[in-house]
Amino acid sequence: MNEIGILVVGNEILDGLVLDTNSQWIINRLKALNLRVWETMTVRDEIPEIARGISRLASDGCELIFTTGGLGPTHDDMTIQGVAEAFGLRLELDEDALAIVSRQYAELHGRGVVESPEMTEPRLKMARLPEGARPLDNRVGGAPGVLLERGGVQVVSLPGVPLELKWIFENEVLPVLRGRVEGAFAEEVVHLPLRDESTLAPIIDEAMEEVPGVYVKSMVKPYGATGIRLWVSFRGSSQSEAEEMVRRAVGLLRSRTEEKLPNG
Amino acid sequence: MNEIGILVVGNEILDGLVLDTNSQWIINRLKALNLRVWETMTVRDEIPEIARGISRLASDGCELIFTTGGLGPTHDDMTIQGVAEAFGLRLELDEDALAIVSRQYAELHGRGVVESPEMTEPRLKMARLPEGARPLDNRVGGAPGVLLERGGVQVVSLPGVPLELKWIFENEVLPVLRGRVEGAFAEEVVHLPLRDESTLAPIIDEAMEEVPGVYVKSMVKPYGATGIRLWVSFRGSSQSEAEEMVRRAVGLLRSRTEEKLPNG
Repeated sequence: MNEIGILVVGNEILDGLVLDTNSQWIINRLKALNLRVWETMTVRDEIPEIARGISRLASDGCELIFTTGGLGPTHDDMTIQGVAEAFGLRLELDEDALAIVSRQYAELHGRGVVESPEMTEPRLKMARLPEGARPLDNRVGGAPGVLLERGGVQVVSLPGVPLELKWIFENEVLPVLRGRVEGAFAEEVVHLPLRDESTLAPIIDEAMEEVPGVYVKSMVKPYGATGIRLWVSFRGSSQSEAEEMVRRAVGLLRSRTEEKLPNG
Repeated sequence: MNEIGILVVGNEILDGLVLDTNSQWIINRLKALNLRVWETMTVRDEIPEIARGISRLASDGCELIFTTGGLGPTHDDMTIQGVAEAFGLRLELDEDALAIVSRQYAELHGRGVVESPEMTEPRLKMARLPEGARPLDNRVGGAPGVLLERGGVQVVSLPGVPLELKWIFENEVLPVLRGRVEGAFAEEVVHLPLRDESTLAPIIDEAMEEVPGVYVKSMVKPYGATGIRLWVSFRGSSQSEAEEMVRRAVGLLRSRTEEKLPNG
């Protein structure tokens, strides 16, 4: 299957305090690499829930699972424990992770942000990884990301703070993804001067039939609004093929729509 | 268990084109009624995926499941088929749903938005519900919502267009929820003048121990930012109890934090 899943961890999201924008960011960043996210889940800050989320995404064929949130020092940061439980692994203090956390708190101490650079228990917690995992460096926060590869599944755990998540993704995760990247992806968003989505349905079906492999998604707008937006995309073996197929489908959609216009 | 789940349906979300804000809206609307969402999933526009999502949320103890998206007339609107498949039900043309869809297209036709008020196949599709389901009126769009009660589970299917989703929720879903509402909920967001979340961890643990039942969540900010926000909440049998417990926990958090301040 080789699919990708995202497990969002956090009561702050399920209790409506925070809008999850990390998933969309990861999805769009992966899309640029021609990688697609199959499904996402959001679970509460509880070890069994996190473990169950990981197991479900894996059993749905996700070989790469991103987790977001729950890496910090407080009582409700449980993502790494949940990941360890999903694979039946113990947590152990990781020397590389310890070096990252120590460096970050020494730096914060130097800037006068924290009183002491000492590795207290809450700070040590962030250096405890599942056996066999490795830390992903974080130079903009205290908690390292974590990469665990086990039983054919890669789990990449990222912090919930968007700045930190993005830094780790760009600097530490991209090299991990290189091996998965293949083929090419093209897309175009088309605005059509139709107001009624139900008139468009057969036209979309025709375009998808006449350009095999193309995907056309209508992006609904409030009822009665002017115009309909369609998202046309294609994944292919080469960039030129993908672009050609999108171009062909867009041409078809435009010409068939014009034929249907009341005053066309 | 009596939990609530949300199943978001839509490739446009998993392909990064649209940010899902409906889930947070539903969560906050339910929170005001002292109802909590246990977990959410986002799946692709495929009937087996939708059916599997429903089954999973139900098997996790969700007795009320909201679905969002996939109710429209186009080929990729498959939510109702997925819901029917999850319960092994057939779809059948529903007279009440047909009346809603017909009324809406007659109205659009009257405003000159659609060429014909005729019930074409794509429009009829929106009036086919799982056996035993009932439509939820929609006066701001073409697709009715759907309420299905089966095997102790209620499934409420809402359109993905936020305007339509909100209209159906406020006008048609609230009466359905009345029976579930009990107890009271209080919350407060507190800003503390600490910059280091790891210093705060033991203080949060103390507050949660000394005020049993209170929930304290630290809302992380970028590393080194000034101040930390905590969300303190309590679900209780009466509003005055819930407010008192939140007040007590907030007082504890403030006084313990002051003791820890370097220049305190």
